[in-house]
Amino acid sequence: MTTMHVRARAVVRDLTPYKPGKPIEEVQRELKLSSVIKLASNENALGPSPRALAAVRKAAAQVHRYPESSCPLLRERLATRLKVSPDSLIFGNGSDELIVLALRAFVDPGDSVVVGAPTFLIYELQARACGAQVSVVPLAHYRYDLKAMAAAVTPHTKLVFIANPDNPAGTYVTRKELDLFLRNLPAETIAFLDEAYYEFVDSPDYPQTLQYLERRPLIVTRSFSKAYGLAGLRVGYGVAAPDLVAAMEAVREPFNVNSLAQAGAAAALEDAAFLAKTRKMTAEGRAYLTQEFDRLKIRHVPSVTNFILLDVGPGAAELAQALLKRGVIVREMSGWHLPQCLRVTIGTMPENRRFIQALKQCLTR
Amino acid sequence: MTTMHVRARAVVRDLTPYKPGKPIEEVQRELKLSSVIKLASNENALGPSPRALAAVRKAAAQVHRYPESSCPLLRERLATRLKVSPDSLIFGNGSDELIVLALRAFVDPGDSVVVGAPTFLIYELQARACGAQVSVVPLAHYRYDLKAMAAAVTPHTKLVFIANPDNPAGTYVTRKELDLFLRNLPAETIAFLDEAYYEFVDSPDYPQTLQYLERRPLIVTRSFSKAYGLAGLRVGYGVAAPDLVAAMEAVREPFNVNSLAQAGAAAALEDAAFLAKTRKMTAEGRAYLTQEFDRLKIRHVPSVTNFILLDVGPGAAELAQALLKRGVIVREMSGWHLPQCLRVTIGTMPENRRFIQALKQCLTR
Repeated sequence: MTTMHVRARAVVRDLTPYKPGKPIEEVQRELKLSSVIKLASNENALGPSPRALAAVRKAAAQVHRYPESSCPLLRERLATRLKVSPDSLIFGNGSDELIVLALRAFVDPGDSVVVGAPTFLIYELQARACGAQVSVVPLAHYRYDLKAMAAAVTPHTKLVFIANPDNPAGTYVTRKELDLFLRNLPAETIAFLDEAYYEFVDSPDYPQTLQYLERRPLIVTRSFSKAYGLAGLRVGYGVAAPDLVAAMEAVREPFNVNSLAQAGAAAALEDAAFLAKTRKMTAEGRAYLTQEFDRLKIRHVPSVTNFILLDVGPGAAELAQALLKRGVIVREMSGWHLPQCLRVTIGTMPENRRFIQALKQCLTR
Repeated sequence: MTTMHVRARAVVRDLTPYKPGKPIEEVQRELKLSSVIKLASNENALGPSPRALAAVRKAAAQVHRYPESSCPLLRERLATRLKVSPDSLIFGNGSDELIVLALRAFVDPGDSVVVGAPTFLIYELQARACGAQVSVVPLAHYRYDLKAMAAAVTPHTKLVFIANPDNPAGTYVTRKELDLFLRNLPAETIAFLDEAYYEFVDSPDYPQTLQYLERRPLIVTRSFSKAYGLAGLRVGYGVAAPDLVAAMEAVREPFNVNSLAQAGAAAALEDAAFLAKTRKMTAEGRAYLTQEFDRLKIRHVPSVTNFILLDVGPGAAELAQALLKRGVIVREMSGWHLPQCLRVTIGTMPENRRFIQALKQCLTR
């Protein structure tokens, strides 16, 4: 790792960079494996939505043109689908970017931001890059502890980030819990609800947060990377009151969402069959894996998402390495300060079986 | 325009948003025109590089996977091509994003940034969003005034932005001018050289800036949007000393460059025939348009790029509107405080002729 230039901002020199999951190509190159399955980045094992793929290939002929800055087709379809006004929507280069836009729109250096742990690492990293004071509130039993988060909010708190469901825990905050939290949150503080895994959740007490939008400052973000299978294209969206959207729009780069992502996402929204198939595959895989983990007496966190967090005890990193040698990429969690844990993405049934088989082999040795 | 939320940062509330050129689809929708040509956004009239297009369509099948964060194939090819070390490169969601990454890596609120005018508007907009004090130094006779810019540099100046060639002027800073400027620039100040139109420049005294990289803090950025015809994909690159790159990497979102952009750009680099064809079309179109402007006695700035800035006098916005009704989109320049000017992108020869014909009709009326 190169040393950072001395003229870098002090807050930047202190950052710990995010370390992404290994790409399949990299593992194949490094280990010279012919067949590798990747269950490390919560991608959709079915591939991209076929309708999206067709739209992307068609739109490719026009990539010499700049994208339309306002994402008009995608905006119109999504506004209709969500029953919100078009100016309540903002699009990002993945929903990651919406985190950065919210921070840059609302958080001055010295302001406070409240985040959970373990959770999506970009909230804290980018908040620190903005010079924010970050209060990190541990999850309790792998669930967001909204009471403790409420206690961490001060008059200087501009944003509270809640991943619902959480990544990497896979758990969710209930409607009742969120109601109480939002009722007591000061009106000066914006709640940022990251719902990247929204489409996977079946639980009846999972909150439908768009209902809160008119009541208080709230930003809800979702992604086309997971359930719609478009991680490589980079497109996510935020829903918020138009005045909050206007502030984020002011710091947005004009062509942040590429034209193929716009075409793909707009088509994916119409691909109900693919979404249904994805949800079915995920539910079946989750049931299968949960049952196998129980049999193997591996502690695991009940998940409402397309991934499961495992507590395998000491030697988790070595286990991940042993699985890698068998061509199965899972995520070791030391970057989240969970050295005993692995996170595994639910794949197709053949992938899930191959993972369990490899896991059994590794555990026997 | 929606009012911005009162909780937006003061520096954000003061921003004037960037207004992109009108997309063809929007003009067709609004004016119900069957044939529209767009000469407004300095796009490549030949379309995308055919090799890039083939690579994009092939890579599309894997868009359910996250992009490789480090852009390995593109990085390797570009490092070889430019004869720089791979860790001297950073990739962005368009070269626009590299402007933001540099500002976020090096500029604290209250620091100073020096920019020209008229120039690419994003420097100033994003610098202000970072809370920087921005010194705006007017161009002299449509050329960067490096002496005046040097005089504007203070001990608090972290970044100086130089678009070379400039957009919208189309002019360039010579090697001799840049040499002198960089020799006297304090070592604490980073020079940011935006070379988005690099591939179009033929002038022998245009500086080859990669030679300066080891001598002083310098960031050089280029784009695949223009000469390579990939504006819709969003990919640009920066070249700088590895310690400067490391600081920008720290604030970069891990999946900022989508996987189709990576595949397309890597293939475009190998498409020498397309680049040669683009340069030839541009040179021919520039000669034709220049000659026609001279005949029509329209003042124009000598350009080394794929666009030309015209001073048409009072009524430029009306002229742009009249051209629009004839299906020709050019850029009116009030956003750059050049109300007498239009900027026209060099198109294919049929497009250039159609533009000149429409221009003549508009001027006669």
